[in-house]
Amino acid sequence: MRILITGAAGFLGSHLCERLLSEGHSVIGMDNFLTGDPQNLAHLTTNENFSFIRHDVSNFIFVPGKLDAVLHFASPASPNKNSPYGYPNLPIQTMKAGALGTHNALGVAKANNATFLLASTSEIYGDPEEHPQKETYWGHVDPTGPRSMYDEAKRFAEALTMSYHRFHGIDTRIVRIFNTYGSRMRLDDGRVIPNFIQQALRNEPLTIYGEGKQTRSFCFADDLIEGIYRLLLSGIHEPVNIGNPVEMTVLELAVKVNEIINNPAGLIINEDLRLGNDPERRRPDITKARELLNWEPQYTLVQGLEKTIPYFKMKLGI
Amino acid sequence: MRILITGAAGFLGSHLCERLLSEGHSVIGMDNFLTGDPQNLAHLTTNENFSFIRHDVSNFIFVPGKLDAVLHFASPASPNKNSPYGYPNLPIQTMKAGALGTHNALGVAKANNATFLLASTSEIYGDPEEHPQKETYWGHVDPTGPRSMYDEAKRFAEALTMSYHRFHGIDTRIVRIFNTYGSRMRLDDGRVIPNFIQQALRNEPLTIYGEGKQTRSFCFADDLIEGIYRLLLSGIHEPVNIGNPVEMTVLELAVKVNEIINNPAGLIINEDLRLGNDPERRRPDITKARELLNWEPQYTLVQGLEKTIPYFKMKLGI
Repeated sequence: MRILITGAAGFLGSHLCERLLSEGHSVIGMDNFLTGDPQNLAHLTTNENFSFIRHDVSNFIFVPGKLDAVLHFASPASPNKNSPYGYPNLPIQTMKAGALGTHNALGVAKANNATFLLASTSEIYGDPEEHPQKETYWGHVDPTGPRSMYDEAKRFAEALTMSYHRFHGIDTRIVRIFNTYGSRMRLDDGRVIPNFIQQALRNEPLTIYGEGKQTRSFCFADDLIEGIYRLLLSGIHEPVNIGNPVEMTVLELAVKVNEIINNPAGLIINEDLRLGNDPERRRPDITKARELLNWEPQYTLVQGLEKTIPYFKMKLGI
Repeated sequence: MRILITGAAGFLGSHLCERLLSEGHSVIGMDNFLTGDPQNLAHLTTNENFSFIRHDVSNFIFVPGKLDAVLHFASPASPNKNSPYGYPNLPIQTMKAGALGTHNALGVAKANNATFLLASTSEIYGDPEEHPQKETYWGHVDPTGPRSMYDEAKRFAEALTMSYHRFHGIDTRIVRIFNTYGSRMRLDDGRVIPNFIQQALRNEPLTIYGEGKQTRSFCFADDLIEGIYRLLLSGIHEPVNIGNPVEMTVLELAVKVNEIINNPAGLIINEDLRLGNDPERRRPDITKARELLNWEPQYTLVQGLEKTIPYFKMKLGI
């Protein structure tokens, strides 16, 4: 297949490019480097099946030649309000990537009669009142709250994708991505795993926001990409959760990271939560992915962390 | 003030133009006539304070001269899947009006340092689990359901409006409009009051979808416009419900319409509901509008219907 990936220079986009190239596909990456990093694609530039277009997906997308699939991964994705790359500091760009970007990406899929895959998110479930979250859960999102620029952009993108499927007959997919970690996350991403790894590598105490009792389910990037690839090849138009259902508290995660990295500095509890409406619990129900894609995560947290830590060591020069 | 109104040829847009002109403002109407009707503005064309630009708000908006306010009312708004004007049959246009249209309308407000008012809707509450609905309720909307093109477009528009307020400091307003009726609704609008009035005027039995036990709260257009005008002049940036809190069943409404029009043909119960996820109950909590705008509806249902029915008689030539 000849595949366009928007957000190709991002954390997940770049892993996806690699995987699709290794399966023998031809890949066109697209990114405006707002939050993506050219270095994430540097090793692919000599691959003759890879090409790159620098472009902001909020503007009309044109790609010469026939496309078989369009995977829309472009969006700021970090909730870190202290980072210039966090979506709270890029609210308009985030909403444009979700609305105009999805619209333009669907447009190029339609023009090519190509399959379209939307990278959606567990954030569409908001602060969930159902646990774990099934795909049938409608979510609990504050439409005007401090995270609404991201959550509502992705909900809009899902609705638009389904409209193109139902009204224009486009062959669409929607993956709802839960917390994922791995190499190529930004150092200043602000999410908990890159934060903890860096603090532990510097032998600093790990900072826990709130009381550390909020739970998360962390999926290793390779597992996630496998799930997305299977979804792409499937014929499933309704949203599918892809994530790791093993739930743990942030406190448990911190202890584990310190253990693996052998960090003697311990923990610091900071009771000011980072961002309004930070969800207390989030865990995917992956029954649908198990049954329809025969997919489930293969990496344990320790295995995933051990494959992730060398990247941060390299970046930090440790 | 010099005021731009998008969706000016629609039901509410045209009433709003009239009201603002009567208050001495200068009004520029904008519409692409996708669902609006030029006849709704025909009587204003000789007013020297009124001008009109035919334009699709999904495309960049330019208006010569300084604007003091931008009121964004452009959107298909009827849920009738049997009408070519219903949003289920205009899903892409509906989502474009909500996303690109709101983005462009906010852009022209920003360029003019003008006040922006978004026409939002009780539909952002979806099928509510809280009753009546306060502005603090986050809603219960299916992001990929058959009404999602409208509900998610409006939720997105609210989030984008708040982002422009918080990030760019734009002076914004959000009105959440509950069921409203009055003259200039399309004959094929498909909502219950125009349907009932026309059937009664033709001495046909009124068709009740479902069992007629679903409740609605109907606000007369003049009351609604008064509330919107007060909100525009206020400094309130958070969403405000405007609607009539008097709740009745669709069955009660039907009996009332037959009584006023003196229709002997009675009712027909049709148990197939019109559209998936048609909300069972919807009633505004208008405490905020009462306290902050000193507003509440003045018209009873009978008074409002008596001012509405002549329009339908005229349109039907009865």
